[in-house]
Amino acid sequence: MLERIRIVLIGTSHPGNIGGTARAMHNMGLSDLALVAPRCEPLTADTVSRASGADHIVHDARTVDSLEQAVSECTLVVGASARSRTLPWPMITPRALGDRLPTELAAPASRVALVFGREDSGLTNTELQRCHAHVHIPTNPDFSSLNLAAAVQVLAYECRQAWLGQQATADPVEAEPSLSLATHEELEHYFEHLERALVAIGFHDPATPRQLMARLRRFTLRARPERMELNILRGILTATEQQAERRE
Amino acid sequence: MLERIRIVLIGTSHPGNIGGTARAMHNMGLSDLALVAPRCEPLTADTVSRASGADHIVHDARTVDSLEQAVSECTLVVGASARSRTLPWPMITPRALGDRLPTELAAPASRVALVFGREDSGLTNTELQRCHAHVHIPTNPDFSSLNLAAAVQVLAYECRQAWLGQQATADPVEAEPSLSLATHEELEHYFEHLERALVAIGFHDPATPRQLMARLRRFTLRARPERMELNILRGILTATEQQAERRE
Repeated sequence: MLERIRIVLIGTSHPGNIGGTARAMHNMGLSDLALVAPRCEPLTADTVSRASGADHIVHDARTVDSLEQAVSECTLVVGASARSRTLPWPMITPRALGDRLPTELAAPASRVALVFGREDSGLTNTELQRCHAHVHIPTNPDFSSLNLAAAVQVLAYECRQAWLGQQATADPVEAEPSLSLATHEELEHYFEHLERALVAIGFHDPATPRQLMARLRRFTLRARPERMELNILRGILTATEQQAERRE
Repeated sequence: MLERIRIVLIGTSHPGNIGGTARAMHNMGLSDLALVAPRCEPLTADTVSRASGADHIVHDARTVDSLEQAVSECTLVVGASARSRTLPWPMITPRALGDRLPTELAAPASRVALVFGREDSGLTNTELQRCHAHVHIPTNPDFSSLNLAAAVQVLAYECRQAWLGQQATADPVEAEPSLSLATHEELEHYFEHLERALVAIGFHDPATPRQLMARLRRFTLRARPERMELNILRGILTATEQQAERRE
């Protein structure tokens, strides 16, 4: 289970935090690290020092340009968020996230990504809206900014707790029939298609978006669509576009 | 409750770890730090840098010569231990520790100390044997040595969880913002509208339904739509129907 949990760091500024993240991950048995557009050299003396023997995780990390590339095949994408943003999104606690993991990872092809933002500014609203849910680590309201590696440590600890809990149960609990959940990439293709169709029927004007796409994203992601369902929805969009085209 | 939990660091070598400990404590709402015979200057530039705004906790810390002085008035002393020692001792998990805290701290005079050892060698057997119990943070057996501040972070997080749990039972709080969920009737009106629109664009033939509506129902109900979201979806259906009508 733990090998199918990916830690994604976006725009990290300090190599020491990448090293600290690697140490926290290895301590808790996680190994899959992706770096999105780091704003520093990922592997420096500081990285190795803070990794304290876990720098192989940084060596093995994939470095990519965008969040999409980092999570394309993931079936659950959870973004770490310090606060609720303009558009409320499904929020879970670290413990609830841990409790969900055995079910989320029951199917062998499923992958979970935990996404962490920049040290200074976190995740952007665009990035947050690409997540199924947001996880908030409860902190002192007067001092809520956790160190990046410390935030990874807490969530990685909950991942390990969940895994240990699963080991402890004699019979692996078959919580859900193994669904073929849509991947992040399939969902993004669907949202692109949806936006095109809404423009075609004159319902949506990208120049005055009024959070329409964000609201539709939130609704759709909450339902955790299966691949088959997305295919139906895309079929409806194609039929809708054909109506709009024939009209012209 | 949190103000009566003391973090005790014994023989710390790196000021950065003291700063990281202060940050982790302040993040989780702990404030009482005791340093036993530190092997470094506690307050350096490194301390302040890693504390990232929580260095007042180091300023306020008591520095003493022995574990006894640091925990004298404490009613429960728990030592962080990486492994079981020669003499087995009551071991608890971080979560079980958290679960015990509200009871342990029910009396106003009670105090809990969480004791952390040296970066290189942990706590001595003598020190461990002065503890009521040992807490072991579950880690990867191949890489079990947690950074000192990371270990404090995990236990401080469990302390805060326990405190939040107590707040929740004492004063029941709405876990979710009260959403205006769509009623059954509103949902049924939406599904009727959806079916009409799908017929209008030629995607759906009620004579050969092939479970289409059932699949769309299942998907939609899973998301628990809010009223506002249904209004958006019905707006899209109306725009779609207008395309189909104009075509005729």
